[in-house]
Amino acid sequence: MTLTGHMLIGQQTLAGNREAIHGINPATHAALEPAYAGGSAEHVEQACALAWAALDVYRETPLSARAAFLETIAQEIEAIGDELIDRAMAETGLPRARLSGERGRTCQQLRMFARTVRAGEWLDVRVDPAQPQRQPMPRSDLRQRQIPLGPVAVFGASNFPLAFSVAGGDTASALAAGCPVIVKAHGAHPGTSELVGRAVTRAVKACGLPEGVFSLLYGSGREVGIALVTDPRIKAVGFTGSRSGGLALCQAAQARPEPIPVYAEMSSINPVLLFPAALQNRAEALAQGFVASLTLGAGQFCTNPGLVIAQQGPALDSFVAAAARLIKDCSAQTMLTPGIFNAYEAGVSLLAENARAQVVAAGQIGTGPNQCQAHLFITNASDFLADHTLQAEAFGAASLIVQCASDDEIRQVTEHLEGQLTATLHLDDADLEQARTLLPTLERKAGRLLVNGWPTGVEVCDAMVHGGAFPATSDARSTSVGTAAILRFLRPVCYQDFPDSLLPAALKHDNPLQLRRLLDGQRETQA
Amino acid sequence: MTLTGHMLIGQQTLAGNREAIHGINPATHAALEPAYAGGSAEHVEQACALAWAALDVYRETPLSARAAFLETIAQEIEAIGDELIDRAMAETGLPRARLSGERGRTCQQLRMFARTVRAGEWLDVRVDPAQPQRQPMPRSDLRQRQIPLGPVAVFGASNFPLAFSVAGGDTASALAAGCPVIVKAHGAHPGTSELVGRAVTRAVKACGLPEGVFSLLYGSGREVGIALVTDPRIKAVGFTGSRSGGLALCQAAQARPEPIPVYAEMSSINPVLLFPAALQNRAEALAQGFVASLTLGAGQFCTNPGLVIAQQGPALDSFVAAAARLIKDCSAQTMLTPGIFNAYEAGVSLLAENARAQVVAAGQIGTGPNQCQAHLFITNASDFLADHTLQAEAFGAASLIVQCASDDEIRQVTEHLEGQLTATLHLDDADLEQARTLLPTLERKAGRLLVNGWPTGVEVCDAMVHGGAFPATSDARSTSVGTAAILRFLRPVCYQDFPDSLLPAALKHDNPLQLRRLLDGQRETQA
Repeated sequence: MTLTGHMLIGQQTLAGNREAIHGINPATHAALEPAYAGGSAEHVEQACALAWAALDVYRETPLSARAAFLETIAQEIEAIGDELIDRAMAETGLPRARLSGERGRTCQQLRMFARTVRAGEWLDVRVDPAQPQRQPMPRSDLRQRQIPLGPVAVFGASNFPLAFSVAGGDTASALAAGCPVIVKAHGAHPGTSELVGRAVTRAVKACGLPEGVFSLLYGSGREVGIALVTDPRIKAVGFTGSRSGGLALCQAAQARPEPIPVYAEMSSINPVLLFPAALQNRAEALAQGFVASLTLGAGQFCTNPGLVIAQQGPALDSFVAAAARLIKDCSAQTMLTPGIFNAYEAGVSLLAENARAQVVAAGQIGTGPNQCQAHLFITNASDFLADHTLQAEAFGAASLIVQCASDDEIRQVTEHLEGQLTATLHLDDADLEQARTLLPTLERKAGRLLVNGWPTGVEVCDAMVHGGAFPATSDARSTSVGTAAILRFLRPVCYQDFPDSLLPAALKHDNPLQLRRLLDGQRETQA
Repeated sequence: MTLTGHMLIGQQTLAGNREAIHGINPATHAALEPAYAGGSAEHVEQACALAWAALDVYRETPLSARAAFLETIAQEIEAIGDELIDRAMAETGLPRARLSGERGRTCQQLRMFARTVRAGEWLDVRVDPAQPQRQPMPRSDLRQRQIPLGPVAVFGASNFPLAFSVAGGDTASALAAGCPVIVKAHGAHPGTSELVGRAVTRAVKACGLPEGVFSLLYGSGREVGIALVTDPRIKAVGFTGSRSGGLALCQAAQARPEPIPVYAEMSSINPVLLFPAALQNRAEALAQGFVASLTLGAGQFCTNPGLVIAQQGPALDSFVAAAARLIKDCSAQTMLTPGIFNAYEAGVSLLAENARAQVVAAGQIGTGPNQCQAHLFITNASDFLADHTLQAEAFGAASLIVQCASDDEIRQVTEHLEGQLTATLHLDDADLEQARTLLPTLERKAGRLLVNGWPTGVEVCDAMVHGGAFPATSDARSTSVGTAAILRFLRPVCYQDFPDSLLPAALKHDNPLQLRRLLDGQRETQA
């Protein structure tokens, strides 16, 4: 397929009229063709008009048709073949195996939402039948279902060019909910975005859906993003990226005449607590697992373990020594973009210059551009509690160990943490009681708690929560990974005393969708 | 029981140290004893500290204990007896039968949430068991449940001194979710608030719960309210009242270092569409139903039918004539507060002075203070579309008829509406197709759609939605009435590879709470 550098506005391809971006090979700094001219507010207007026109049709597509659409997107992405992986490798510096796996995850995610759509539990159908004889007042017939919020703006992430970008988790869950989607492509992988965007528009056409169900825009500055978030036809936003970027979108969305929800997944340092018995019994193995998780993908994961909390003593010293040895052996890895590399270097410098933290070890220095050198720092609890900047995320393979003098300091440090995507506990049986006392705090902070694992590697499934208290996300009530992500884009509507012919299929008296409804206070056990 | 005029901070009763409010009998303007001295930021601090201390204990109470607590509150409210109704009558001017009914609704609501808590569906338990043999990577054991957001600030409504005040819908749903609650009493019924607040604190004590589960504060100015919403320990807000009040709370909540959700139910004019055949067949009956709904409780309902939309012609003329005749016979009714009366008079004056609207009829003028005189106005579609102020809510028994020249004008007027709590369709069989074409628009606007009924009278049940698009509420994803209101105060947490002994009861392997879990992608049909 020849890349065109054009935006996809419904079934139209259109060249932008603003400053162009190029994909950049971060390993070489080479600019990749073609140029992607940025869109303008006019293009946002066109895409929003099409999305709005598509809404009332798309949101009432039969569940089977909507599910088939999601599956068709997956097929179309797979049909691109090696070209997709080759282009993504060139734009991101990520290795082939990682990107092949990520493509699998992306397509599995689309098929998972197809199953979720078909099962229909997300409709949360509740029926309270009429009670005409009730005293002192009869009860009306009342039926509730969930409907989609409306068109959704999605801002792709840099670090998952497939699984959290054009047809990634936000897009898949919004389309599953019945919302048309307008994606603003991430500037770090415009060609990958075009390839996937074209796969989606082919699926829209193949499934006979209104073209406005999907559009893909480019833009190097703020014009497109702000125009999207402030357009009155956009009813929700999905975003994965920096805290400053997420907060800017939240503010724009709140300042609208009609404020809208923003689901921004922003920043997290993912604390790892090493309990005494575990540390005593397997300091070396813990150090190996830790360094592997820390340096995976040059540390460019939202769930990267950027903070380790443990009680000081010989066992922790062993862990630190082993981790230092392993870090020193770590090769440098190419980061995704020059911007991410520069931000990582700045973050590491801040820690290195902070008198409250000491460098434990650094990895090997790379030779090409944008090479991430792993870093491990150490501090103590009182310094950590005194300096909020020690909680700042340095996106990449850097982590900070907090040595605590007592259980009480561990509790203080834990309670002092900002909201997090994950919190990890490494423990043995003898640690259970101490771990139990910290759980309430960790539950209040994080979306996912792990025992004896590492936070990188986010399973896409029903039970996953990729969320957490602010500032990990802008809305702790939600997850951006897993089937519960569909719930972000829905709102309830109640139908009172509707004639059956006017009711949507989900609410009709003979239950044609065979949903297990909450009927008169009881959950139906048979469909 | 002797009213003390004191705040309830946990189990303590404390006199405020700011300007006092008195209950006012709106029928006589008489000030009622005792004085309720306002609290200060210090009292907010005390209540928040207690609520925070109670959180981790209260949120893990067994479901049966939490349900029993809600039922005990209902019993304690009933045990107050006539004193509660007498005081509420004096403070609100509402009649005995209405307040007795509202007390019943309030207690039924608490018992309904007790059943919801016990059933446990709100925990939304999802289990994806480990797959150690999976290729290329094993799957961890992943389990999700919902936990409460944290302490909730509740601002009581003026117009439901029992059902939407101290132990009303917001409080009941937040307590059901496991959130401690701090209520700021509405100044219109401080004595009623004290009586109910004491019932709640007795229930807290009787059930052996931490005292911080509930506090009740007073305050005449903004100090207490803003201190509450900006306290870092408050994690969500429930509010029912004016648009300006709701928006002020939303702004304060968004400006926090950690923004929090605000569920504000603000304003709605509840459009009623009269379709041609219905209007032709039963103009007189429709006028009777309309005027009864409009003037019920002096029109002081959030769901009051403040807008009628219909096609011009003889049938609409008959409806207007009948409604005018009935309105003229309506006695004046005492409004809840001088403030509400003054706002109503101002709203009616604005309409009367607006050249785009004409007075159709006015009800009888009252003789005492704060007497609501019913008003009916009429305009046409082009004027309505040209003047946004015609959509402003005049809280009370005033409504505006919009005459449309065509189906297309009806569609334009409907699409032009702001978000609404309800939208009502009066139709006969011959109207079904026209109604069907308007449904998508109405679904996008309103939380509840009714056929051939009237919007006043909100059933408290599973299927109810008392919500709707902005500015009817600040968060269309929610309802403030019905069992789904519990979902507002929850967030998901995932537990990965937890040993069974560390898992909360809802997630343990042998399912001791007998929940129907989403297990490995399938809903369990047996507990």
